[in-house]
Parts: sequence; C-alpha cells; structure tokens
Amino acid sequence: MKKLINDPQDVVREALEGMAAAHPDLIRVNMEPRYVVRADAPVQGKVAIVSGGGSGHEPMHGGFVGYGMLDAACPGEVFTSPTPDQMYEASKAVHGGAGVLHIVKNYSGDVMNFEMAADMVRAEGIQVESVVIDDDVAVENSTYTQGRRGVGTTVLAEKICGAAAEAGYDLRRVADLCRKVNGWGRSMGMALTPCTVPHVGTPSFELGENEMEIGIGIHGEPGRRREALRPADEIVEMLLEPILQDLPFRQGDDVLLFVNSMGGTPLIELYVAYRKAAQVLARHGIRVVRSLVGPYITSLEMAGMSITLLKMDDELVRLWDAPVLTPALKWGAAPAPAAGSGGAA
Amino acid sequence: MKKLINDPQDVVREALEGMAAAHPDLIRVNMEPRYVVRADAPVQGKVAIVSGGGSGHEPMHGGFVGYGMLDAACPGEVFTSPTPDQMYEASKAVHGGAGVLHIVKNYSGDVMNFEMAADMVRAEGIQVESVVIDDDVAVENSTYTQGRRGVGTTVLAEKICGAAAEAGYDLRRVADLCRKVNGWGRSMGMALTPCTVPHVGTPSFELGENEMEIGIGIHGEPGRRREALRPADEIVEMLLEPILQDLPFRQGDDVLLFVNSMGGTPLIELYVAYRKAAQVLARHGIRVVRSLVGPYITSLEMAGMSITLLKMDDELVRLWDAPVLTPALKWGAAPAPAAGSGGAA
Repeated sequence: MKKLINDPQDVVREALEGMAAAHPDLIRVNMEPRYVVRADAPVQGKVAIVSGGGSGHEPMHGGFVGYGMLDAACPGEVFTSPTPDQMYEASKAVHGGAGVLHIVKNYSGDVMNFEMAADMVRAEGIQVESVVIDDDVAVENSTYTQGRRGVGTTVLAEKICGAAAEAGYDLRRVADLCRKVNGWGRSMGMALTPCTVPHVGTPSFELGENEMEIGIGIHGEPGRRREALRPADEIVEMLLEPILQDLPFRQGDDVLLFVNSMGGTPLIELYVAYRKAAQVLARHGIRVVRSLVGPYITSLEMAGMSITLLKMDDELVRLWDAPVLTPALKWGAAPAPAAGSGGAA
Repeated sequence: MKKLINDPQDVVREALEGMAAAHPDLIRVNMEPRYVVRADAPVQGKVAIVSGGGSGHEPMHGGFVGYGMLDAACPGEVFTSPTPDQMYEASKAVHGGAGVLHIVKNYSGDVMNFEMAADMVRAEGIQVESVVIDDDVAVENSTYTQGRRGVGTTVLAEKICGAAAEAGYDLRRVADLCRKVNGWGRSMGMALTPCTVPHVGTPSFELGENEMEIGIGIHGEPGRRREALRPADEIVEMLLEPILQDLPFRQGDDVLLFVNSMGGTPLIELYVAYRKAAQVLARHGIRVVRSLVGPYITSLEMAGMSITLLKMDDELVRLWDAPVLTPALKWGAAPAPAAGSGGAA
C-alpha cells in the first residue's frame, strides 16, 4: 500500500484537520462528533442542507460545504457510514429556523443512520426532509444497497439545491427540487484498477492487467461485467447507452454532462472521454448546455471514471450557474449580506 | 498500460477536442498549429500572457486559459516541448496591442523554442517579454534542464500575472511581477509511483514496492534520492526543509501554501500532507495567508505530491484574490466589459 498517510487509523481525522487549516474562510470542522460546517453557519432564515457518507470520496462531501451548496457534511471512516449523532449534531448546528434537508446517497448504512438522525432532529422541533439519491443505472441491488446506488447525481443535486436554498426556496420546495434532480439524473461508472482502504491495507478487489470492471460502485462493488480493456471511445459508449435508455433521454433534451474521475485517472484522459461523450450525445440530438469534468466523487486512488447525465431546464440551469464558494466548487461571488441578516462570517 | 485512451498517438488531439467541447464559454482551441486561447481573445489594450509546454501536466496550461489568467497555452505532445510556430501563432492570435508575456518553465526545449518564437513575434513589431520559471529546489541541473526545473510556482505566476494584466499593468510591469513571483516561490516534489507516456507504453522509471523518490521532476527526472517509503508527516518535513532554507523564508513571512497532486494521489492524502505542512510553518512563525490544494501541475497518473511556498505581500494577495474564470481555476465574477472596450465575447 503506497499512500501519503501516517497511521491508517488517523487518515480521516488528519485530512479533516488539513481541510480546516486550508479553508478557514469557507468552513469549520467539528471533531467530536465529526462534521464540517460552512464558516457562517447557521444562516438565519435559510433552509440548511446536510449530507454525508463514508470518507474516501473526496472532495465529496466536505469539499462541497460553503456558500451556495452544503451547510454541513458528516464524514464517516473510509467507505463507512457516519453515525446518527454526527448527522444530528450537524443538523442542529446549521439549522437557521427554516428546517433541514438531508441529501442521502442510497447505501443501507447511510439511509438507516440518516433516518435515525432525522427522527432525533424532529424531536427537537426542527423540520427535516430527506431525499435519497439513487442514480446509478449499473445494477438494481448491490453489496451495500437495496435498489440503485447513489453516485454522481449527488454532486449535482447538492449544488443545485444549495443554490435554491440560498435563493430563498422553502424546505418543501428544496426537497421537491432535490427529488426532481434525482429523477432527472443517471450515472454509470467503470474501473481500471481497484483501490485500497487504508486500515485494510490490501486492494478491495482484483483486476487483471488487461481487465476493466463496467458498472463499478464507488466502494468497489461489483458492476455489470468484467471484460478486456477497450479503447476509451468504446468504454464511453458502453457507459452512455444504458444511461440514455434508462430515463429515457430524448432528442431535443438539454443536459449537463459530468465526466468524473474515480481518483487515479488524470484529467487528460477525462477530456478524451468527454470528447466522445459529447459526440455520442450530438448524434442523439441531445444538447449539452453545461459540463463538469474532474475528480468530484472519487474512490480513493481507483483509476476509472463515471459519466452522469442530468436533464436540464431553465430552473436547473439558473441554479447551476448561481454563485458557489466551497473548497472544491467555486464560481461567482456571494452577494454582500444585508445588514442584520445574520449571514456574515 | 491501463489508460482511458484510444490510439496513443491521438491522446493530445482528442483531449484538446474534449476541452473545446466542455468549455466553449471560456476557451477556443486551434488545431493547426495547436493552441488554446480565451474565448474573447484578443483583448484590446491588455497585455497578453502566453504559456505552454509538454502535455501530461493537465490542467496546466490549457486549463488556465481564460479571464484573469492566460490568454493562450501551447500544448506539445506528452512530455515534449511545443514548437516555435505554435507559440508564434498563439502570440499573434492574442496580442491586443499591449504586447505579449511568455511564461516559460525551465526545460531546455521550452526555453529554446520560446526564444525562437519571441524573435519571430518581435519581427512582426510586437513587444515580447519572457520570464523563465525555475523554482524547483530539488536539483541544480536535470535531465532536460540547465539550472533548476520550473514546477509549481508556474501555476501561481500565471494566476497572479493574469490578474495584473487584467488590472491594466503594462508589459514591463507584468514581466517584473512574474520575475518577483519566481524569485519568491520555491517547490519540491516526490513520487510514490512512476507514470507511463502513452506512446511509449512502459513506465518512465521503476520504483520498488516500498520505495519513493524524493525531489522527482514532473517528467520523472531523478530527484535527490530514492529511499524507503515513510509516513506522510516525515515526507512533508523532507520537502519543506530545503524549501524553507533556500529562499530563505523567515519568521513573520506571509506565504501561500500549495500542496499539489502529481495526478494519481487523491485529495484525502493531500489534506493529510497539508495539515502537517501548516504545522511545520506555524512552528517556524510563518503565516499561511492563502492556500491551494489539488491536482494543478501533474505528471499523468503518477502518485506523489509537490509542495510550493510563495512569499506573499499585499500586491500578491490582492492579485491572487482577483477573479479568475478558467476551466481549472475559477472564482469571483468578471466585471461586465465597458461599452466599446472590445473585450466582450
């Protein structure tokens, strides 16, 4: 295991300390229990958005905390669900009087623990809505999942719902929007290499020198099939075909095209794949109106990629374009807070 | 060789096509000769900044083209210098009447070709200044380099000089600023694994299962020494010590701390390293006032990291914070162009 770490048991804590040190203008890190909140939390009068899940998928979710995206993120140990008390304390810390939305990836531990946390938060008289993301078309059930796994659409839902909350949507509207994004997003991934959980020390699965896994999960869960490595263009077709059929996406649709690195695949390869994906979509008469290319929902150092397509309308485009100021996604400028708004850091 | 590519000879062209498809709002790609320009080039009255070098270091340099950073980037084949005609045509394409600055990493091919290109551009009556970046403290001469190699400070110089050009600095002032940044920046890198140039097909060097290379170059050039893998905290000390001694950085200095992935090292490990680097600097009484963490100057899929320290003053902080809108670095909002300014896309 060749990693830039110290004691494998300390990786998550030390990485959180690094995030806190690197981004004091954007986030604060609480260590007991562990959660990341935006520096100006709680924002009075705004719906608070909380997400979380196992670590090892960085920048998701801690890197998405800040203006225009998440109010809090709860990191578990690597590939392990965070606990209900993390979600409960984080929700209370960011609640600004307008309720809390939990965005939950569909893994059994995350779903169960977020349900317990939601009950605990509601018992304090705070309104909570939960939306489960299940956008991975690869398989119907998986190692840690009943139904479909939650993957790339999570990143897009967190950005879009974060902008909606910032724009003043109430809790019901933000939750409905999140369900709409989940309903309109589809993903599929593949791996060239496995990854190694630090405290395990050996790869989570094996792949031959000339093999790839099509439909891989973000924890290395089995996909649809294992087969011989093929050119990038063929792999893109193999990922896009089930995505396009599933919704189904149609001629005339506008979409956001998200090509994501599993962690170890460099940007030059993502752009090779993006090129082909754009060509395939053009052939189908589908118009790419926004893009995202890079490592945003990763699996440690796994080499591979996932493709996410999100159908877009004017509302989603407007919310996607809205300012966001987080460690990992950043564009536009936050408006100066009005006097007495309570939103200033 | 497990990569998401098609024919290895086509990687650079296909990646550029992908960039053009993904970022039509920010950049345009010219294919013959190959260069990337900002979508609104040439910007009248603004100093134009051109950089370039071998591909395989993405997002550098093409990902840094856009408002507030580079006007053009010239990509060579992987780990191969671009040609003078690329630099010449790119410089002419972005010249807006205020001259052109070439920012050149110190590799013999890049330096020679940018010198030839500068002569060709000057022969057209266009003012050109060139600044060579040579910030790598690891070794004095290297495989492709007389003197020190140019590495992480290049990213920071391109951001800061891009902001200065946007703010109206004239050519001489932008060039002097670039020399100041180079003079105040120091870097050192290390590798856990080698990388494979696509058209070569085999790793550029070998590292044992428990070995690392301290002082690695971004093309896999030998560093200071090869030794047994150690905990991240010790590696950070091994990189920071020669950096701190070289300038020298002193108690009371303000710095930007840049922890960079060589490509295959995931963000969670970079933050573990950032944490330790921040602790070491605090121990020396050096104040980190800005940070950058992520894969910005990479070596394909090489696992490893580099650390760059840049001494900061008020001018550099202001220019670092200024808006930038490129595929890879993006924050703030560009001001609306004044009527008749010619800068609108």
